[in-house]
Amino acid sequence: MRIETLSEVKSHGGVQGVYRHASTSTGTDMTFALFVPLHEPGEKLPVIWYLSGLTCTHANVMEKGEYRAACAAQRVIFVAPDTSPRGDDVPDDPDGAYDFGLGAGFYVDAMRPPFDRHYNMRSYIEKELPALIKEHFPADMARQGIMGHSMGGHGALTVALRDSSRFKSVSAFAPIAAPSQCPWGEKALSGYLGDDRKAWREYDACALLEDGMCLPDLLVDQGEADNFLEEQLRTELLQAACDSVGQKATIRMQAGYDHSYYFISSFMAEHIGWHADRLK
Amino acid sequence: MRIETLSEVKSHGGVQGVYRHASTSTGTDMTFALFVPLHEPGEKLPVIWYLSGLTCTHANVMEKGEYRAACAAQRVIFVAPDTSPRGDDVPDDPDGAYDFGLGAGFYVDAMRPPFDRHYNMRSYIEKELPALIKEHFPADMARQGIMGHSMGGHGALTVALRDSSRFKSVSAFAPIAAPSQCPWGEKALSGYLGDDRKAWREYDACALLEDGMCLPDLLVDQGEADNFLEEQLRTELLQAACDSVGQKATIRMQAGYDHSYYFISSFMAEHIGWHADRLK
Repeated sequence: MRIETLSEVKSHGGVQGVYRHASTSTGTDMTFALFVPLHEPGEKLPVIWYLSGLTCTHANVMEKGEYRAACAAQRVIFVAPDTSPRGDDVPDDPDGAYDFGLGAGFYVDAMRPPFDRHYNMRSYIEKELPALIKEHFPADMARQGIMGHSMGGHGALTVALRDSSRFKSVSAFAPIAAPSQCPWGEKALSGYLGDDRKAWREYDACALLEDGMCLPDLLVDQGEADNFLEEQLRTELLQAACDSVGQKATIRMQAGYDHSYYFISSFMAEHIGWHADRLK
Repeated sequence: MRIETLSEVKSHGGVQGVYRHASTSTGTDMTFALFVPLHEPGEKLPVIWYLSGLTCTHANVMEKGEYRAACAAQRVIFVAPDTSPRGDDVPDDPDGAYDFGLGAGFYVDAMRPPFDRHYNMRSYIEKELPALIKEHFPADMARQGIMGHSMGGHGALTVALRDSSRFKSVSAFAPIAAPSQCPWGEKALSGYLGDDRKAWREYDACALLEDGMCLPDLLVDQGEADNFLEEQLRTELLQAACDSVGQKATIRMQAGYDHSYYFISSFMAEHIGWHADRLK
C-alpha cells in the first residue's frame, strides 16, 4: 500500500511526519500523524495509538499534545489518526453539528445509509492503518498501546476491549465512558448503527466490561472541572463497571482540570511512561 | 491599571491565563498569555519573557511551545506578549505582507507616520507590561529572563542588550541577528524608523554589541535546516560580533531543525532550565 508524505519535520531528535493514503475502509483519502523518535538502524519500536476527540483531526494532538519529549525519551512511536472520513462526497450531520459526521466518526463501522459507505473508522483503526504502519515504519506491532481523549478515549477503550490481545497497555483522558447512556453517544450510535441498542454494546466500554471483555490494566485521568463530565463522559459509570467485574483500573479525578489540551498535555508524559513500562 | 481575564485554565498544576488591557503605549487593547506555576502563598516567582516571531500572537507559543512542564518544575512565570498593536485603526503593511505591520511590530518604537502612533512595542515590553505584571501577578521583577524566536529573538536580544541590568538571563531561538543586514530587518526598520541607519543601531543586536553593550551570558539555538537562516537570520554575524567584542555566548547550530515550533519546543525545556539556573 502506498502512502504519500505530506510533511516530515525534525523534533525532539526524531521525525514528526504527516502522511496521506487512499483508504479502502473509508473509500476516501485519510491523513495521519506519526512521530518516530531517534533510534538505532534496524531497531523496531513500540507503538502508542492516540485516538482524538470530537472536531479534531490528526493535527490537534500533534500541535498541542506535548507527547514528543516523552516518546523520544521512551523510544516509542506515536500515531494519531484522523477522527472520520472526509471529502466532498462524505455525508455530514444534516444540521452541520459538531458531534456527528465529519470529525465525529466515533470509531464505529456504520450500518445505516448513507453513513455505512464511508464511516468505517473501526476497520480503519483495527485493520487497515496497523498494516500500513507495519509496512512503512520501524514499528514492532507485537508491542502496541492505545490511548485517546473524549470520543477518542471511548475509541481506545472499545477497540482495546474487543481485542485485548493486541494491546499491552490502555489509557484514556476524559473518555466518553458509556456512549449508550449519554446524549453524544446516543446520537452517534443511533445515527451510525440504527435503533437496535443490542448493536451498540460493542461500542460501549461499560457494556463490553459487563459482557465479559477485560483489559490487563487501565489508566484514566478525568478533570473535575470538565464541563462535559456529568452529562456526557460519566466516569462514575466506568468506575462502577470496573468495580463490578473486577477490572483492574486506576481512574483518577483531577481537581481543577477541564476538557482541553491544557489538561491532556499535563498528564501526557505520565501516560506515555505508563505505556512504555508495559511495552518494554 | 486594570486587566481583563479572557481565560484561565489549569495546566501542569499551574494556571495558563490570557489577559487583555488598554495599552497607553500602543493606544490599543493588548492581549498577553501568562503561566503561573503552582507556588506557595505569598511566594514571588522569577519571570521569563518570550517574544514571538512574525505572524504570531500570544497564542502560538501558548499552544505549541511546550514550556509549561519545565516552568512548573522550575517554578518560573512565563509571559508571552503579542507581536504588534491590533485594531481597525492600526495601519498595516500597504500590501498586506506578513513581514510588516500587524503581527510584525519588530519591538521598536516607531518614528515614521502613520506607524508612530500605535507601533510602540519597545515601550510596551520595556515599561508598560512589566509594571502591569508586577501589579497583578506573583512576580519577582528582580529576577527576569528573556527569550524569543526569530523576530522575537531579535526583540529579546535588543531589549536585553539595551538594559542588561534588567535581565539575569537571555536566550534566543533562531533570532534575526542583524536586522540592518537582512531583507526583513531593512524593510521593518526603514518602514518604522526611516532611512537614517544610525537610528537602526539600537534595534540591531550585532550593532549594539559593536557599540559596547553586553550581556552576562547568551544561549542561542539555530536550526541548520531553517529556510530563513542564510538570507534573514544570519547567525554567523552574531557569532562574529560576539567573538569580536568578547561577549560570552553559546551559539549552537542544530542539525536538521527548521524554523517551526517543532524546533522551538525541542529545546524549550533546556532553555528554561538554563534561565532558571541564572534566576535562582
